Amino acid sequence: MRNVVVLGIGMTQFGKHPDKSLKDLGREALYRAVQDAGIELSQIEAAYVGNAAAGLITGQECIRGQVILSGAGLTGIPVINTENACASGSTAFHLAWMAIASGLYDVVLALGAEKMTHPDKNRAFAALQSGTDIEQLSSFPGYEEHKEGQSIFMDLYASEAREHMMKYGTSLETLAKIAVKNSYNGSLNPYAQYQQAQSLEAVLQSRMISDPLRLKMCSPIGDGAAAAIVCSEKIARQFTTKPVYVTASVVVSGSPSKDQKIDTVQRAAEKAYEVAAIGSEDLQVMEVHDAAVPGELLAYEQLGLCPPGESGRLIESGDTEIGGKIPVNPSGGLISRGHPIGATGIAQIAEITWQLRGQAGARQIRNQPKAGLTENVGGFLNGDNGTVNIHILKR
Amino acid sequence: MRNVVVLGIGMTQFGKHPDKSLKDLGREALYRAVQDAGIELSQIEAAYVGNAAAGLITGQECIRGQVILSGAGLTGIPVINTENACASGSTAFHLAWMAIASGLYDVVLALGAEKMTHPDKNRAFAALQSGTDIEQLSSFPGYEEHKEGQSIFMDLYASEAREHMMKYGTSLETLAKIAVKNSYNGSLNPYAQYQQAQSLEAVLQSRMISDPLRLKMCSPIGDGAAAAIVCSEKIARQFTTKPVYVTASVVVSGSPSKDQKIDTVQRAAEKAYEVAAIGSEDLQVMEVHDAAVPGELLAYEQLGLCPPGESGRLIESGDTEIGGKIPVNPSGGLISRGHPIGATGIAQIAEITWQLRGQAGARQIRNQPKAGLTENVGGFLNGDNGTVNIHILKR
Repeated sequence: MRNVVVLGIGMTQFGKHPDKSLKDLGREALYRAVQDAGIELSQIEAAYVGNAAAGLITGQECIRGQVILSGAGLTGIPVINTENACASGSTAFHLAWMAIASGLYDVVLALGAEKMTHPDKNRAFAALQSGTDIEQLSSFPGYEEHKEGQSIFMDLYASEAREHMMKYGTSLETLAKIAVKNSYNGSLNPYAQYQQAQSLEAVLQSRMISDPLRLKMCSPIGDGAAAAIVCSEKIARQFTTKPVYVTASVVVSGSPSKDQKIDTVQRAAEKAYEVAAIGSEDLQVMEVHDAAVPGELLAYEQLGLCPPGESGRLIESGDTEIGGKIPVNPSGGLISRGHPIGATGIAQIAEITWQLRGQAGARQIRNQPKAGLTENVGGFLNGDNGTVNIHILKR
Repeated sequence: MRNVVVLGIGMTQFGKHPDKSLKDLGREALYRAVQDAGIELSQIEAAYVGNAAAGLITGQECIRGQVILSGAGLTGIPVINTENACASGSTAFHLAWMAIASGLYDVVLALGAEKMTHPDKNRAFAALQSGTDIEQLSSFPGYEEHKEGQSIFMDLYASEAREHMMKYGTSLETLAKIAVKNSYNGSLNPYAQYQQAQSLEAVLQSRMISDPLRLKMCSPIGDGAAAAIVCSEKIARQFTTKPVYVTASVVVSGSPSKDQKIDTVQRAAEKAYEVAAIGSEDLQVMEVHDAAVPGELLAYEQLGLCPPGESGRLIESGDTEIGGKIPVNPSGGLISRGHPIGATGIAQIAEITWQLRGQAGARQIRNQPKAGLTENVGGFLNGDNGTVNIHILKR
């Protein structure tokens, strides 16, 4: 298989954009990525488009990518629409990677776009809920505690947090410190939905969502798009002397074994490390799926940053801050950058690309990283219904 | 890129299956394909799943493939969900082909499944309608003539039929003969939704849908699934001495030039012929997208079976019947086999595979074909919003 390069990256600011359509958002991300790559629009040979929820939010199904891209000046190329819940963006990126690695195309677009805000807020929650097996929803752990008007996934994250607290004595304050760190990082990121650093007190005093999770420990509902121009090494050499390579692109779905969640993320990470022929110690930056703080807490252990049960100590040590040994979510993560579902996976790729290039502005990691990882999780991992997508990028 | 083989094929009967869920249908097709291939379920390394409409029909979005496959014994593998309107199945097949051609996997599943029937019939029409840019729907040609309770695509096909009749003098009887041929073919196909041969009179006397199209000239709403086990040549050699190769897998989306529809299908066909290094004269069987009879009529010209304007004469000549020079839609096509949207593209691949193997039963083409083509169209081709997927298979 051929080497694959991320040549260009572009994204919209994530946030609530009532006046922007999916087309507006998608186009903005596309044009920025094309400009960043330095290519012409007409060089793009195919588009892989991730969107998770438009069918349930706007009623647009079937040909979402064609509709998002219509009028954007990208005509007559193959458009492949993909969804994989909160991992739709990284699934689109994976397909783009495969298209280049296979030799089928030399330059392709991976685009993730999502519009979650709607005058009827329940549409967003219905869309999130469709990331489970909706026929089996009542057997979802946490379903009984679930309150109307919020995402059922927060109940699941809450139960994971409680389990970690019970098993390892992780405190509420420790959990909250992930949100504090990510809000600080987000305050340095002009693309973030929330750009205000939060104090520990503010996080702890925010509204309870699902015990022990407070509002500021959870990712918000928002709109946004992110795009990547992905190309062959040969093409990349015409446009840059410092290419960013994709050294692993791994998609793994859930398995029904015990402790499924940890197993699936671990399994995906181990596969990715094997494919890239590196270990977690060779990475200098990570973007992980903190749809709520327990997502990041568990990721530390699942991705091999610390042994099981040690993730609380890792956050307390400051090692995952931007100035630490292994910064995690320098973008602000899903909690602060925001989480327009289908866009998130490519926004993670964007952040790692910028960090590897030394272009991350105020949030740039001082010792410019050489390799980074993204972890994007979709669906409900108990049973077969989730997906974990891991990408490793290297300069 | 590596050679790719269709090792196994399986499908459900298409039809109205009120008692079967998407899971039931998907599993039935999967198990039949696995049995046909002679492999173990555990050999499948990844699944590419096409479904166009579950989000709007059952409310299941995001992780449709994982849900369809859950409990099927296929755990822990990557599941990639794709949609492309009526071409969702062939898009899933294209991704499966790419996965094998790239060398990423050796054995993968392409699955298309759709459940269109629902107590509220309008859901099916809403789902079909989402194959257009729903914000622009009112500018759809034929929108003004459109009646509630039917697919807006039939108005489009009707306007294409009227244009062909006006321009080339094609008669209503000639159009109807496509339905007569396909209903006869369907009567020989145990997988077909309709297995009764229709007389010319019966076709002409059926209820008017959109002038000049009568009910029996249009594909019905139905449920079904079709699966293909796709593998590398090396693996195929372990299981068969007579592999069926995929020699072209081409996806092309619409372009906004004049005469868009013809241009896009032609463009896709020309690309496919180029990739497979053959011409239409080298094909002995075709499955084309007769969502309504004009789809097949125009395909004759677009795919190069006859010059522009000659398609009426081609159907009259009998050359596209099972006993003719170039049989088209021996399965009964979308009109008689049925058109559960996401399943259709893979059902076409199934038919060509069976014909190439000499396993098509009562509808087997006598001189066992050596090469065949499938044409699967999705979305609305004017503007950028459609897709044409062409596959060429060869033994």
